[in-house]
This record gives sequence, structure tokens and C-alpha cells, in this order.
Amino acid sequence: MNKQALYEQIQQKRSFLCVGLDTDLDKIPAHLLNEADPLFAFNKVIIDATADLCVAYKPNLAFYERYGVKGWIALEKTVRYIRTQYPEQFIIADAKRGDIGNTSAMYAACFFKDLPFDAVTVAPYMGEDSVSPFLTYPDKWVILLALTSNKGSVDFQLTQDAQGERLFEKVLKTSQTWGTDDQFMYVVGATQGSLFADIRRLVPEHFLLVPGVGAQGGSLAEVVKYGMNSTCGLLVNSSRQILYASKGTDFSIKAREEALKVQQEMDGYLPR
Amino acid sequence: MNKQALYEQIQQKRSFLCVGLDTDLDKIPAHLLNEADPLFAFNKVIIDATADLCVAYKPNLAFYERYGVKGWIALEKTVRYIRTQYPEQFIIADAKRGDIGNTSAMYAACFFKDLPFDAVTVAPYMGEDSVSPFLTYPDKWVILLALTSNKGSVDFQLTQDAQGERLFEKVLKTSQTWGTDDQFMYVVGATQGSLFADIRRLVPEHFLLVPGVGAQGGSLAEVVKYGMNSTCGLLVNSSRQILYASKGTDFSIKAREEALKVQQEMDGYLPR
Repeated sequence: MNKQALYEQIQQKRSFLCVGLDTDLDKIPAHLLNEADPLFAFNKVIIDATADLCVAYKPNLAFYERYGVKGWIALEKTVRYIRTQYPEQFIIADAKRGDIGNTSAMYAACFFKDLPFDAVTVAPYMGEDSVSPFLTYPDKWVILLALTSNKGSVDFQLTQDAQGERLFEKVLKTSQTWGTDDQFMYVVGATQGSLFADIRRLVPEHFLLVPGVGAQGGSLAEVVKYGMNSTCGLLVNSSRQILYASKGTDFSIKAREEALKVQQEMDGYLPR
Repeated sequence: MNKQALYEQIQQKRSFLCVGLDTDLDKIPAHLLNEADPLFAFNKVIIDATADLCVAYKPNLAFYERYGVKGWIALEKTVRYIRTQYPEQFIIADAKRGDIGNTSAMYAACFFKDLPFDAVTVAPYMGEDSVSPFLTYPDKWVILLALTSNKGSVDFQLTQDAQGERLFEKVLKTSQTWGTDDQFMYVVGATQGSLFADIRRLVPEHFLLVPGVGAQGGSLAEVVKYGMNSTCGLLVNSSRQILYASKGTDFSIKAREEALKVQQEMDGYLPR
């Protein structure tokens, strides 16, 4: 999917919500545990309940690998279900991969050739040749970690060089020599407040994937204030707040209510 | 496995070789493609041919995920086979993971609870809380990326802060406040030459996992010169040079010959 198609979807749905599929057997409603594939059964209901309110889904690979082969089966079914039933959706493999070239090429083939993902999150530590194999697929995206939402983001990402440039800024600048704003997005945590403004100065045209609204404490209003650009430029993720809005048989209704709340707030922020 | 047990294995086998299981269906002998599970069939033969010559195996997760569910089945069979048949072996999940706390905890459960890995490679970009969930399992290890073997290692890892400290040095120093040399090893590429000496000054007691000897061009003699410590402190990985020494029916013989060459060179470097 290219940038234009993503923006058109955002305009049509009046939403820039990404639903994170961090599906955890310890948290889904108990009655689903009797299903043959509880992970997929849960995901399918969540997807059907939210697809008109969001523009992207983001399965978190850890939550599937946690269940080994069964988890991979559920992951594949989930991604293929979205691609078939809701072909307009942007599907992100939240995998935080990144390795030497021949290995990143294997991950890229996994997510972009065998599975119908549109994007994969990648960690920048190993540099250009760990990222570039993901850029060889047309209309597929790398979402590079820049400034993350967690407490440990201060440990290395804010380290300043002799010229005062912070590591996340160096990542933003350097990676722009590797590919365009039709190939790269960046992960920027909603908990980062006014640092968002610094990021927008460096990447005015790029989409940002923003985790950390909701369970992690970030504010959507603040993200929009500092982060929105002329083509929206934001995919704001919510996972736990939507997925686990209820543990009862009404979980799909409650999940939809939560997604609707976010979508309605987003509607107010999008220009008409 | 603790550090003492690993060192004893090194002394007994006179080897600090780690065999990287980067198993690629495009590179294994054609006659194995008729097997029900060619990835495992290949790995089993390689393991049986090399287990007395090496102290560790390192499946590279990308090469299994590449094949989806079949890949995961082969990975699980491989790891369980090593653990059962060669319980002395140190088994590394070369996964380069690292995410927010609740997600890293899922990866840790996958590799350390469900699968019998001893260690997992982790990328440091997201900081302490992305690493600490892996440290809650006794006698399990984090192998943190420090200075990698690839070309892109210069992009960010060598960036100096205002005091002249390079990022990989900051990673080495900071992570030592998170855990001990019984919990952490570091990835240091064999292609880094004399930078090895700088690393040894910062982490004199830690084991280093060293890729890049062989196909990537690093020299074992140089790694030993700069990197060996009083308890060896090195796991030197070789993948392609051993796995793909032959594409014929003699591949196990040729793989063993390659592993034996490396082990004999290592024997010469280890004190008696």
C-alpha cells in the first residue's frame, strides 16, 4: 500500500487508529479458550468489530511466538483474514527485527512475500544493511524505531553526540538517506510529549507510528498537536484498552465502544 | 547453564566453537528436499557430525520464520533434539529481539520456558526494560548486541557522545548495571579487529559471542589475540562455512572436516 492510499483510507474512515493485536490467552474471555484456535477466534471477532473504525492492524509477533506452532498458525490466519476481508487495511508486523543483510532478507521474505504484511517494525542498531533488505519490496514499509514509548528509551536513544545531536535524531536523519517517506515510517512513543515537535522538524512528511496512548499513559491530543501533518502523518496504536475492554461475552461490543471513542476523538482532529 | 559449566565444556572439548544453524532450503543438499522435514533432517545430520567439536549451537530464527509454521516445527524439533541428545550444549536463539517490557516478557517465555534455549540475542536500542524480562530466568543468558560484524555497524554503534564515549561502549557500561557476567554476554563481530581490545577493557570477565569468522572475513587468530580471557570468554560462531561445505551426499563429512579444522586451531589457542 502506498502513502496516498493510506491517507485516502484515513479520510474515508475519519480515523488514524491502529489496533494492536497483542493477543494474550491469559487475558481473552474464558469462553473462547474452548475454541480450536482461541487466538484466531478472538482476533476475528475483534477485527470484525473494529475494521470500519481503524485503518491498520498490528499483530505483535511476540504474542504469537509465545505459543509456538499454534501461535504461528493463528498469526497466519489472522493476517490472511484481514487481507481477504478488509483489503483496505494496512497490516503491520510488530516484530522489531534487524540483523545482518542475509538474515534481514529472510525476515523480509517472511513478512512481505509469504505473509501479506504491508510493514514491519525494525530496530536501527545494526545500521543500513540490516534495514535495506526490507526496502526491496514495492509498496512495503519499514517502520524504524526512533524514540520509543518505554522507560528505557532514555538509556540510549537520548544520548547526545559531540554536536548535541541525540541518537534518535541521528537515526531519523541517517535513515532518510536510505529510503523515502513512501518506504519509511518511524516509531515515536505518545509518552514523549514535546519531543514530538523536534521529530516533526526532522521528518515533516513521514508517517509516525505512535504507541503509548491508553495503557501506557500518552495523550492523543498532545500527539496530534505536535505530530499531525498535512497528510495526517499519524497512525496511533491502541492495544490493551480495546482488546481487553471486557473479559465477558460482551467483549466485542465493549471493544467496539472503545475503538469508537478513539475514532470519534480522531474525527475531531482531522481537517474537513 | 552457568558460566562455570560452559567453561568446563570448553576445556573438555578443547573448543569454543558455536555452530550457527542458518539453515536455508536453497543451500542444503538437493537429496534432502524429499524428506518430510528437510530443515530438521539437515540440522540433525549437521548436529550429529559436529557435536563433539563445538560447545554451542545457534539457530538463526529468521531462517525458520521464513518457512512459517513448517519452519517453527523444524526449529522446535532442532532445539529439543540438541537438548535431549547433547545436553551439554549451550543453545542460543539468534533472534535480535527487544521490545517494551510486557512484550520482551513474551519473547523470554517463548525461548526460555516453552523452548529449552540457554540464551537469546537482544538488541539494546530500547534500553533496560526491554532487556530485563530476559534476566528473570536462572541460568539463562542475554547476549546483547554491542559491536556487530556488518558494514552498518558504523552507522550508529560508533557514534561518540560529548565525552568521546562510543555508543557500543555505553551499551557495555550501562548494561553491566542491569546484570552480571553470569547473565550477559555481548555480540562483538570478528571483523572489528583492534576494537576488540577496547571492549575487553570494559568487559574483562564476560563471554563474547563472535560472528564474522569465515564467510564474513574475520580472523580467528585476531579474535583470540584481543578477546580471550582467563576463562576463554569467547564463543566464536561459524555458520555457512560449516553448513554448506558441500552440497552433495558427503555434506556431513565435509561439515565435520570444516568444524574439525576450526576446533584444531582453537585447541592451539586454549591454555593447557
